Amino acid sequence: MDKETLKGYLRERQAEVDRLLQSYLPSAKCPPALIHEAMRYSLFAGGKRLRPILCLAAAESVGGRRETVLPYAAAIELIHTYSLIHDDLPAMDNDDYRRGKLTNHKMFGESTAILAGDALLTAAFTLIAEKGVTGSISHKKILSVMLELGSAAGSTGMVGGQLVDIQSEGKKSIDLEQLHYIHTHKTGALIRASVRIGGLLGGASPKKLSSLTRYGEKVGLAFQIADDVLDIEGEEKDLGKSVGQDEAKEKWTYPRLIGLERSKKEAQVLVEEAVAELNGFGPEAKALRSLALYMVERKK
Amino acid sequence: MDKETLKGYLRERQAEVDRLLQSYLPSAKCPPALIHEAMRYSLFAGGKRLRPILCLAAAESVGGRRETVLPYAAAIELIHTYSLIHDDLPAMDNDDYRRGKLTNHKMFGESTAILAGDALLTAAFTLIAEKGVTGSISHKKILSVMLELGSAAGSTGMVGGQLVDIQSEGKKSIDLEQLHYIHTHKTGALIRASVRIGGLLGGASPKKLSSLTRYGEKVGLAFQIADDVLDIEGEEKDLGKSVGQDEAKEKWTYPRLIGLERSKKEAQVLVEEAVAELNGFGPEAKALRSLALYMVERKK
Repeated sequence: MDKETLKGYLRERQAEVDRLLQSYLPSAKCPPALIHEAMRYSLFAGGKRLRPILCLAAAESVGGRRETVLPYAAAIELIHTYSLIHDDLPAMDNDDYRRGKLTNHKMFGESTAILAGDALLTAAFTLIAEKGVTGSISHKKILSVMLELGSAAGSTGMVGGQLVDIQSEGKKSIDLEQLHYIHTHKTGALIRASVRIGGLLGGASPKKLSSLTRYGEKVGLAFQIADDVLDIEGEEKDLGKSVGQDEAKEKWTYPRLIGLERSKKEAQVLVEEAVAELNGFGPEAKALRSLALYMVERKK
Repeated sequence: MDKETLKGYLRERQAEVDRLLQSYLPSAKCPPALIHEAMRYSLFAGGKRLRPILCLAAAESVGGRRETVLPYAAAIELIHTYSLIHDDLPAMDNDDYRRGKLTNHKMFGESTAILAGDALLTAAFTLIAEKGVTGSISHKKILSVMLELGSAAGSTGMVGGQLVDIQSEGKKSIDLEQLHYIHTHKTGALIRASVRIGGLLGGASPKKLSSLTRYGEKVGLAFQIADDVLDIEGEEKDLGKSVGQDEAKEKWTYPRLIGLERSKKEAQVLVEEAVAELNGFGPEAKALRSLALYMVERKK
């Protein structure tokens, strides 16, 4: 896909995910209104929906139907959004802005932000269960998807990565292995799961699912390294937040540990390897190939 | 059941739930160790396991097998424990002690406590999915259980109730309808779901499930009124926390709104009505009948 085609593709998929989330989430007037207002504020704050889009593209790459997979892809975004709200809290990263807007706790207060995150996390599983009960995919497969998502999001996945990230702040030094742990868990686990869930629901063979898994792992790590790089080289107007935050917070990043140029090179190599994992796939994997490149070439 | 028999029953069921949770949760050494230590700290802090026990008793009351239901009953306790950890946070109820021990954030710090709650909530759904995929209950029914639990725990259930509770603190007045909303959502929704899930998994007929639902609603409200009363009349050594907390925090409670004696009477009437809901049930509902009484007669 050329850049323009990809842009259109991303826009269309994003709109599909947004429509589903809009219709699934209780309206901002549904009591108690404040919780739904707070959930919606962060959920519709301009997220790129990259994880659901990766999930949809993975399903398509193995011949799955996008419409069937959409609710489960969208559920991943609920988990992603909850994690951002909780990460931004004063006790965690203490961020005031995200995507050019006040963070949830700055807007609604800390207790509401904690609860909005809790409710979004809960809603992710409720959405899967609700659509799964009535949908056309086998109930056993839906449970596998739930297990996949729960494992990726929990204490040995995303939450574990966030904990180690916070523990490592301000430390005198950490080694590449520890940083790799943080990146592959805090960000990587959910991206890997997004791709795998798309594959599972799309009906991937065990061999193709393995390829997709490795693709997801590489793309997930590349994404986070690119994020580290953007925090140094990105434009504040594109990112919607101040750059240089990682350094200010003494966060450990790839550029800090191995240098900026080597980090960029590393992300590039990972993306190439990710695309190579799709060699056995046909033209249906076109989007997935383009998405890998987009992960490191994006400006925000 | 006489008091001694009930005591033994509660002890045995508690041990069963504890054994399952012990074997399911990653050990306190599993990396990242701190998150698992924090999760286990609150999960094994002496909880009575009332919700799982209600779930098991409800299953038995309709002829279900306890062993089959146990994992799903235990998952409810993971949700209950997460909600306690988050409720205790400085931004929420700001409690230092629970069950005679330091609260999670006092012991591990605020960021770890938030993450431990997040991980326990996630683990509840992962546990259900994992046991559900391999277990003997129909996968569709497992998804219904998941939907039931998610709806009860989410923004229109428990989380919604907690939000309104916090909003109402320090208000000049609220009416009984609003207090009823708080109690039936913050505490009632999960208790109702516990009973319903037991019924669903035990194979209840639609009629019996309706009776169990009403039983759960009444018992849930009675439980919270009894909690309000214990905060005034209970013994600190039994409760493991200071009494008079509700008044100090300007919480709205039944005794504050309708008086202590009327509150006790109300709880008693609810329990009698709950037991009456089980009139169509046989001796298998013995435990469920005794549990209703226990809800308001307990000392902690």
